[in-house]
Amino acid sequence: MKIPRSITKLIESFQSLPGIGPKTAQRLTFHLLNFPQEHLDTFAQSLSSLKSGTMLCRECKNVGEHDICAICTDPTREKGQIIVVASPMDAFAIEKTGFNGLYHVLHGVIDPLNNVGPEELFLHELIARLHKLKGFSDEALEVIIATNTSMEGESTAMYLAKLIRSSGFSPQEVKLSRIARGLPVGGDIEYADDITLTRAIEGRINF
Amino acid sequence: MKIPRSITKLIESFQSLPGIGPKTAQRLTFHLLNFPQEHLDTFAQSLSSLKSGTMLCRECKNVGEHDICAICTDPTREKGQIIVVASPMDAFAIEKTGFNGLYHVLHGVIDPLNNVGPEELFLHELIARLHKLKGFSDEALEVIIATNTSMEGESTAMYLAKLIRSSGFSPQEVKLSRIARGLPVGGDIEYADDITLTRAIEGRINF
Repeated sequence: MKIPRSITKLIESFQSLPGIGPKTAQRLTFHLLNFPQEHLDTFAQSLSSLKSGTMLCRECKNVGEHDICAICTDPTREKGQIIVVASPMDAFAIEKTGFNGLYHVLHGVIDPLNNVGPEELFLHELIARLHKLKGFSDEALEVIIATNTSMEGESTAMYLAKLIRSSGFSPQEVKLSRIARGLPVGGDIEYADDITLTRAIEGRINF
Repeated sequence: MKIPRSITKLIESFQSLPGIGPKTAQRLTFHLLNFPQEHLDTFAQSLSSLKSGTMLCRECKNVGEHDICAICTDPTREKGQIIVVASPMDAFAIEKTGFNGLYHVLHGVIDPLNNVGPEELFLHELIARLHKLKGFSDEALEVIIATNTSMEGESTAMYLAKLIRSSGFSPQEVKLSRIARGLPVGGDIEYADDITLTRAIEGRINF
């Protein structure tokens, strides 16, 4: 059966998205056939204007609507605390916890297998930012590294920690920390993997 | 954190698709932020031209590119065999099996809980089609009802069978059949549910 060209084109577009295989792409496309045209137009319009409506914040590299984002300009935020994340989605997830410091978005992690080296990330921009912030305040800055706890996330964290120290920031000037690795809340010790359990014991907290 | 409007708009559009929840919609949208603009434009263009590039076949109501679809006009297809399906995707799946008859797409199943009654489906169009086909050929027509084996699919099949008989088609004129229900190929009897197993025994085939 020859599927109409306009259908296969949309199936191909859906398939280019992560986690969407041929079957799902087909299902979504055929489902959209039942949508009113105006709904499709709205969808299409939000797709093409996605990037024109957003820009990277000059300071923190997070996705925002202005040259400097709403968080960086917010006077109530704790300026001495910077949480480093790999993607805007991670910043968004952390924001929901009520975190009140600033962000720094790397836009990726070091991943040699996929040809992502340190130069591809906003690492040196963070160093420049720390230099600037140090000039403004007498108190120690804190950098919390919140990359994923995957192999790539851990090595990026390690690389960043070394970079900050080798850029001349002493532990008195910039405190460095890494988010805790341990059992997720509601987790079962019985089902936890060895590495997580080892990390949970290493990272134990006094009552 | 205020997410830029152009991002939330696209997240909302993705969420309107079946099987895509808030988390997936977010992930897809943030992923698309890394796509080149031309890719987004292609995607948008295929979305808005989805419906303009397709039309329902006047005969079988399947989705095609012309007034009468490529299958209905194909002289090599078996005109005396019509397989009735609920959606174009089902026709597409059956087409891959090498089936060589014609289709009739109902565009839904009778589903009172979701306010879909028999009038919403292309049931009477099938009856009209059978009347027309009967005039052309002396041989018996065969209608294979291939709606899903869900509750709604079964009751639609039952309704359609009654409708065909009450429209004056005798078993000599129109043979009616229903796709077999049984164990999927590679299936385990041990794990099959009671109803499937009952159906598989009822529908047993002589060696």
